[in-house]
Amino acid sequence: MTFSLHPRIAADTVSVGRFPSVAVLLHRDARYPWVILVPEVEGIREIHDLSHELRHALLDHSCGVAEAMQRHFGADKMNVAALGNMVPQLHLHHVARFEGDAAWPGAIWGAHPPLDYASGELEARRGELRGAFAPLPGFG
Amino acid sequence: MTFSLHPRIAADTVSVGRFPSVAVLLHRDARYPWVILVPEVEGIREIHDLSHELRHALLDHSCGVAEAMQRHFGADKMNVAALGNMVPQLHLHHVARFEGDAAWPGAIWGAHPPLDYASGELEARRGELRGAFAPLPGFG
Repeated sequence: MTFSLHPRIAADTVSVGRFPSVAVLLHRDARYPWVILVPEVEGIREIHDLSHELRHALLDHSCGVAEAMQRHFGADKMNVAALGNMVPQLHLHHVARFEGDAAWPGAIWGAHPPLDYASGELEARRGELRGAFAPLPGFG
Repeated sequence: MTFSLHPRIAADTVSVGRFPSVAVLLHRDARYPWVILVPEVEGIREIHDLSHELRHALLDHSCGVAEAMQRHFGADKMNVAALGNMVPQLHLHHVARFEGDAAWPGAIWGAHPPLDYASGELEARRGELRGAFAPLPGFG
């Protein structure tokens, strides 16, 4: 089956790049540095539905992304989560959290409506992230 | 360093068993079947702080636990998350979600105060889970 990004994910994000078989997306919510990884396999809802090989590759990419985000933004904590109650396509959230951010210390989901990036700032953040992820194996 | 479970996690859970180097815990909140995996390594906050070997072992155990929970409870969705904004010790949530459950389709964290299991039901669920996890490699 051909893979296509779920329309809700496509609407909520912009592309930052990709690893082999994994899309790297930036959420448009400016409240938090928020990156989403989506394995490009059609019809997958759960991490355990992935092949052994791809789930381990996803973990390696996830750890690389989380570590790079934490270092780049000086985050106090990374939140990494596969929820998917609303959007059935498997997607893995990576959110850089800071003491005193809008939802701290709670979870971000449902805490606040998304906040748009100011003009030019979404593109700037996208560029920052491309730089932060550039050393990661397979990122392009 | 000797590992000890964070007191908040110890207070909120009961032991279901363990994998090598990973504790398997049942959350005392009866609203959701909710299992927490804790790598028994002192001073770790993030998945990416684990060694390559242990993070991959954690993923294998996580997938086994999530798949067994989904099958056993007939869950509509598994939520798998490493948050840790309040409790610094790395712990990985596995929550079986059902359309129409107390927080559906939102995230469970912060949605409701915990609900105690009725007398005997916590022990019953613990036994159920031990049975569901018994076939998983390394579980005991």
